[in-house]
Amino acid sequence: MRATLTVCILIWPTLVFASDPLPSWRESEAKDRILEFISEAVDAGSDGFVPKPDRIAAFDNDGTLWTEQPVYAQVYFALDRAAEMAAADPDWGKTSALQAAADGDLESLAAGGEEALLEVVNATHSGMSVEEFDATVRDWFASARNPTTGMLFTEMIYQPMLELMDHLRANDFRVFIVTGGGIDFVRSFSEEVYDVPRERVVGSMTGLEFETVDGEPQVTKTSELAFLDDKSGKPIGIARGIGRKPVFVGGNSDGDLEMLQWSTAGQGPRLGLIIRHTDSIREFEYDRESPVGRLNDALDQADERGWIVVDMAEDWETVWPN
Amino acid sequence: MRATLTVCILIWPTLVFASDPLPSWRESEAKDRILEFISEAVDAGSDGFVPKPDRIAAFDNDGTLWTEQPVYAQVYFALDRAAEMAAADPDWGKTSALQAAADGDLESLAAGGEEALLEVVNATHSGMSVEEFDATVRDWFASARNPTTGMLFTEMIYQPMLELMDHLRANDFRVFIVTGGGIDFVRSFSEEVYDVPRERVVGSMTGLEFETVDGEPQVTKTSELAFLDDKSGKPIGIARGIGRKPVFVGGNSDGDLEMLQWSTAGQGPRLGLIIRHTDSIREFEYDRESPVGRLNDALDQADERGWIVVDMAEDWETVWPN
Repeated sequence: MRATLTVCILIWPTLVFASDPLPSWRESEAKDRILEFISEAVDAGSDGFVPKPDRIAAFDNDGTLWTEQPVYAQVYFALDRAAEMAAADPDWGKTSALQAAADGDLESLAAGGEEALLEVVNATHSGMSVEEFDATVRDWFASARNPTTGMLFTEMIYQPMLELMDHLRANDFRVFIVTGGGIDFVRSFSEEVYDVPRERVVGSMTGLEFETVDGEPQVTKTSELAFLDDKSGKPIGIARGIGRKPVFVGGNSDGDLEMLQWSTAGQGPRLGLIIRHTDSIREFEYDRESPVGRLNDALDQADERGWIVVDMAEDWETVWPN
Repeated sequence: MRATLTVCILIWPTLVFASDPLPSWRESEAKDRILEFISEAVDAGSDGFVPKPDRIAAFDNDGTLWTEQPVYAQVYFALDRAAEMAAADPDWGKTSALQAAADGDLESLAAGGEEALLEVVNATHSGMSVEEFDATVRDWFASARNPTTGMLFTEMIYQPMLELMDHLRANDFRVFIVTGGGIDFVRSFSEEVYDVPRERVVGSMTGLEFETVDGEPQVTKTSELAFLDDKSGKPIGIARGIGRKPVFVGGNSDGDLEMLQWSTAGQGPRLGLIIRHTDSIREFEYDRESPVGRLNDALDQADERGWIVVDMAEDWETVWPN
């Protein structure tokens, strides 16, 4: 009995170690380098050791942790909100951008460019408390589906990235999301969907106002953009929201370029990851020419800077969770 | 032997439970209410139960976790930096505020009011990367002392509050600092001094800029105030930096009033704590009339809103860590 117990105790860690922490990743250079980086990060005797306080991992969301095609989920949310607001108030949305949104006319909206889109986001993401907005987004996600696949948006998350985040956390990394999307929007599902607590989301922000409504103090979202967490905004968002340069960083588009550059520069072990959308069968295939999630400059710099480029079609055994 | 082991195993949790988690707090209503709140928060069968994701505690820093008299530590840092910058560059600091700061003339600086102080903080907290600023502040803290007591600033932290933060963390609360002081300033010591990781500090912020210096990408602090995390700024800072209303909140001045109001309003168990500086012997005695850390409106509202007012002289057995 005692002998059996001893054997079990000795074998147990080996078994745990031997099981593949990234079963949805096919054997590849990408997988090898990721696993090696993490196993060295926790090995105090290794050159790749990362002290626990510095074990920060940061991932972009759209296109890195979930699907961003044909258009970002948040745009569909804005369109649905616009339709709702227009239906509730005939005076709502007199500008061409807001009218296009209320009509669900993505094409006209796109013709207005970033400015039109921002107008719609500002108008549909404001005028309520942060808690009310959170409830509104949750309601929407319960039934909102990607128009191409018919899957729930929250089902179109990448199983290999879930495994990677789990493996990082199991090795005492704190995993953050650094999204160009709205911080309150992403926080509404980050805990349930990614196991990333709300406070570990960095993102774009509307203005906020403290006020007392019906005797209750509340924080209200106002209709202007206070911070755009994209491109050079990402390192700034990280410096504010995390206060420490990540050592492990992942993105998929030129919006992540500066975050990748900054996080992988400097002393000590650092790993940069680019998810390249090469899978027209299981997901979407796009990069240099895509208006959504354009990956061009970051791809050009990947080799020289030593970033791992993940080929979704080649490197991922499965894409979606079961 | 086996019997002894069994007894030990059975007794162990009882011993742990029975030991006082707040030994520096004297028996008092404040201590009872704090301990009761926390023990109910983790008891799924209690009305005071708080689900784990919602266990957020937020504390002000100056005057709540450490001493803020005769003037905030950060002001002394700004004065010392001003003197250094003026010595290094004769052209530095031509305005009256900057000159007063460089001369260490706190009185003249105070005469210029908040505007003068802000000018000095902006000028002394900028023009370098966030990492350089961090190193500068750490250097300063290694030897900077409170002019009244001669103690290191980092020694003038409150032992009872360290115990409270430990006890909260032991019960799966995530403990945040929400400071009117600079976020980068407080992050430079929060981990070592309070065991609060950098990412769990919310505070006032300078502007930030992403730039490439000598081929290295960096985030640089610019010389304007981007966000003031004080008064109604505190709920906003929390909504941005934490994304969730704390259920346990502590402050000591009117700068914490809106944070206290917001955090203790709404459904579910909530606890608000005010540290009242009543101890002229061991620390400082001040409240309604003090220009630094004025406690007036929040004190008036404490009873009606059910906030616990901690009387430092009465309720704390010890003030400083050994």
